[in-house]
Amino acid sequence: MNKNPIGVFDSGIGGLTVLREITRLLPEENTIYLGDTARVPYGSKSKETVERYSFEVSSFLLKHGIKMLVAACNTASAFAVPRLNAELKIPVIGVIEPGARAAVEATRDNRIGVIGTEGTIKSSAYTVAIKRLNPAISTFVKACPLFVPLVEEGWSNDEVTELVAQRYLQEMKDSSVDTLVLGCTHYPLLKDIISRVMGGGVRLIDSAEATASEVKRILAASGMLNSRNEKVNHRFFVTDSPERFLSVGRRFFGENLSEAELAHLEG
Amino acid sequence: MNKNPIGVFDSGIGGLTVLREITRLLPEENTIYLGDTARVPYGSKSKETVERYSFEVSSFLLKHGIKMLVAACNTASAFAVPRLNAELKIPVIGVIEPGARAAVEATRDNRIGVIGTEGTIKSSAYTVAIKRLNPAISTFVKACPLFVPLVEEGWSNDEVTELVAQRYLQEMKDSSVDTLVLGCTHYPLLKDIISRVMGGGVRLIDSAEATASEVKRILAASGMLNSRNEKVNHRFFVTDSPERFLSVGRRFFGENLSEAELAHLEG
Repeated sequence: MNKNPIGVFDSGIGGLTVLREITRLLPEENTIYLGDTARVPYGSKSKETVERYSFEVSSFLLKHGIKMLVAACNTASAFAVPRLNAELKIPVIGVIEPGARAAVEATRDNRIGVIGTEGTIKSSAYTVAIKRLNPAISTFVKACPLFVPLVEEGWSNDEVTELVAQRYLQEMKDSSVDTLVLGCTHYPLLKDIISRVMGGGVRLIDSAEATASEVKRILAASGMLNSRNEKVNHRFFVTDSPERFLSVGRRFFGENLSEAELAHLEG
Repeated sequence: MNKNPIGVFDSGIGGLTVLREITRLLPEENTIYLGDTARVPYGSKSKETVERYSFEVSSFLLKHGIKMLVAACNTASAFAVPRLNAELKIPVIGVIEPGARAAVEATRDNRIGVIGTEGTIKSSAYTVAIKRLNPAISTFVKACPLFVPLVEEGWSNDEVTELVAQRYLQEMKDSSVDTLVLGCTHYPLLKDIISRVMGGGVRLIDSAEATASEVKRILAASGMLNSRNEKVNHRFFVTDSPERFLSVGRRFFGENLSEAELAHLEG
């Protein structure tokens, strides 16, 4: 039994979709979330920079006594989780392994597509993780840099976004994938449009649920679940002004997101 | 006579449009450019954060012996130039004052529109600068957050971008402005589309040229122009990987952009 919080971080607000699934599946757990909004986005930046930022963010969360660290950001998962896992003394998971596993379980024709930021796609992290689970699977990848700003603009159900999705996903349709990994935490907000463009037969894999299950499995296996029947605490930190985080973040997490504190990271 | 370089900074690559005008107008001048690509964009971030970043970037450039500092970024100009100007010992200019002056000279009906990032628009910096020059002028403002990612995606002449521009600029058209300030260094790459949407009668003001003239005026007035007939030197620094900066930056600066060095800022 361990009532210390689970630490969750993201470059900004997208990771709230992962946090939401964790709090749904594990309602007894305390959590602490950090959105690195002063340096968002990570998706267009290099491995070295994303790795450095992820370590700075993790140091902050470790000082708050977290029992486990979740990189709720695909780019950070791709670039930083291996080294975080090797160097930190607590369990560290990203969203890529759980998402890859869910996709491998879902595919019937062994044809999986992956969409994400430039960084995630360039890293080949999903392709590597999928091939490791089943080398017979063919993967098809596509970076979709405009999806994040479109979601942040609030145009998740908009003809402009549908037009952009048609452009980005045409090759993916031509490749006849039967499963598509939404390899960025913003993309679940585009599920309706992506599903319409890809066609109903294609399964969309959202890593958030799979990641929450993995968090539960690890905490249970190591006897670290919180079973105390106390009021749980969800703390939110950001590195830039909380106002924008709160207004946009509610689209990701719901109306319970009422307060965020400013975090000062050490470079 | 002073052959020290002119320092120019931006959150990323957009400021290259300003640097290009400076090097055209002042071909004898050495320059040093810093794009803060590890933390781009500034446009969606708070005043405090943008101000802090601008001071860190300026410290780096000051160590390279610059004789003048140009904030070639509208958001940094809006949020940080007043304090930079008060605290640094060299002349500091932003792009807002020159752009505002050019707009005031261009308008006939005293109706000026301003488009820019969220930060620039929220700051009201253009409105304040325009009203100071002529209080009788009416201003109309609109934040256009998707324009930057659309330019960076290379969709500067694309039906998607035209659709987005129609959406963003409809109110501006309804306001019957006769002059529109392109209040973000990325927007000159959208001149064709913006002009088509607004109609040929509306003058588009690009701060880059006006800023370059102001740089020349200040250097001339203070006897700091470089008149030596030596080979000039243009150095480029970025805070994240140079590769992306070079490939995207050529759309802004031309093929002469061949090398960029990695800068390590002190936080």
